[in-house]
Amino acid sequence: MIEEGVSAGGENGRFISFEGGEGCGKSTQAHRLAEALTLAGHEVVLTREPGGTEGAEAIRSLLVSGDPGRWLPWSEACLVNAARAEHVTRVIRPALRRGAWVLCDRYIDSTRAYQGAGKGLDDAALTAMHAQVTRNLWPDLTLVLGLPVEQGLARAATRSRAGKAETRFEAHDAGFHGRVEAFFAALPAAEPWRCVAIDASGTIADVGRRIRDAAESWTWS
Amino acid sequence: MIEEGVSAGGENGRFISFEGGEGCGKSTQAHRLAEALTLAGHEVVLTREPGGTEGAEAIRSLLVSGDPGRWLPWSEACLVNAARAEHVTRVIRPALRRGAWVLCDRYIDSTRAYQGAGKGLDDAALTAMHAQVTRNLWPDLTLVLGLPVEQGLARAATRSRAGKAETRFEAHDAGFHGRVEAFFAALPAAEPWRCVAIDASGTIADVGRRIRDAAESWTWS
Repeated sequence: MIEEGVSAGGENGRFISFEGGEGCGKSTQAHRLAEALTLAGHEVVLTREPGGTEGAEAIRSLLVSGDPGRWLPWSEACLVNAARAEHVTRVIRPALRRGAWVLCDRYIDSTRAYQGAGKGLDDAALTAMHAQVTRNLWPDLTLVLGLPVEQGLARAATRSRAGKAETRFEAHDAGFHGRVEAFFAALPAAEPWRCVAIDASGTIADVGRRIRDAAESWTWS
Repeated sequence: MIEEGVSAGGENGRFISFEGGEGCGKSTQAHRLAEALTLAGHEVVLTREPGGTEGAEAIRSLLVSGDPGRWLPWSEACLVNAARAEHVTRVIRPALRRGAWVLCDRYIDSTRAYQGAGKGLDDAALTAMHAQVTRNLWPDLTLVLGLPVEQGLARAATRSRAGKAETRFEAHDAGFHGRVEAFFAALPAAEPWRCVAIDASGTIADVGRRIRDAAESWTWS
């Protein structure tokens, strides 16, 4: 399954992606779950997209900095897929083959949300490109963190004032972020075989509990 | 035709690509033809791939430097397509709409030769990705410069000793360059409606004459 199949499959490692709009707490929560799984004795690979390898991080720096209009939608999609090809082949598949849990902060659903819903690229074209460059690797479980878009952008803005440089996507207009949010909001019901909605409001500990509950009660294929 | 069609079409500008292996003289000859066309009173846009816009040149620098194994084949193809989406949309199509002659040093056939024949990616998958990101823009005329691979690499090596830094592809093994060369050698006969073989041996002036003859005798659609 890991070599050719659609999902990572249960026979070896487990592949969990964290998805959601800006400032919804994905990175923080991925770290927390990684700690909990490590304490439970699992090998955990905590990674992110775009990024996760030296080359993919170089591509990330092209994507996340500069003017919102710096890249056309298809250029963005191709850059994201270039980084993902590196990440899947050099990091994620080898980790799954070893039996590790891979926790990834953003994956294909961010491409569908940002370049698809947000910028108008066709979802089928994006998933076809994904199939090509990753040999169709999908997560076993996708945790979709939901927060009203204004709350998320407010959190993200606090972070940028604190000196974070990766502001290119945050600087897109409100209509864009609304379409991204709507995609993520609809995703769990549209693809329930791998997606779970997580209420991302409340304290970090509250959200962390919801995520551990979701992972523990998930039926792994 | 320029908006939606397969080739740039004859109604506005003319789109000529220069193709061939390392050191075959493409860049020199593209410059010479640009000069001749400018003297003849045409608007000429002389450009290159990967590159031709600020963003695409940033992607180029990722592609042409570093270790030959730095990028996986699909990562390379996605990077090339990201750069091409920028180049076609921001430079080539606007120039063709103005009625300019666009002379481009490498285009889709280099992707088919290097990432396809050279690195094993499927030609149909590469041309499908090209159709997606460029809205299927093909040159009106592709000049395929042919030189035995040893002669080309010897020329390219002289250039690298002169301090040229873009040596990543030249550093690939001989088998790779042989497959690239074989693709280019077969291309004019396989796609004669837009490709012409140019003998790239002899002096710069000799090759320049062959190219001007080919362009002058070409039946533009």
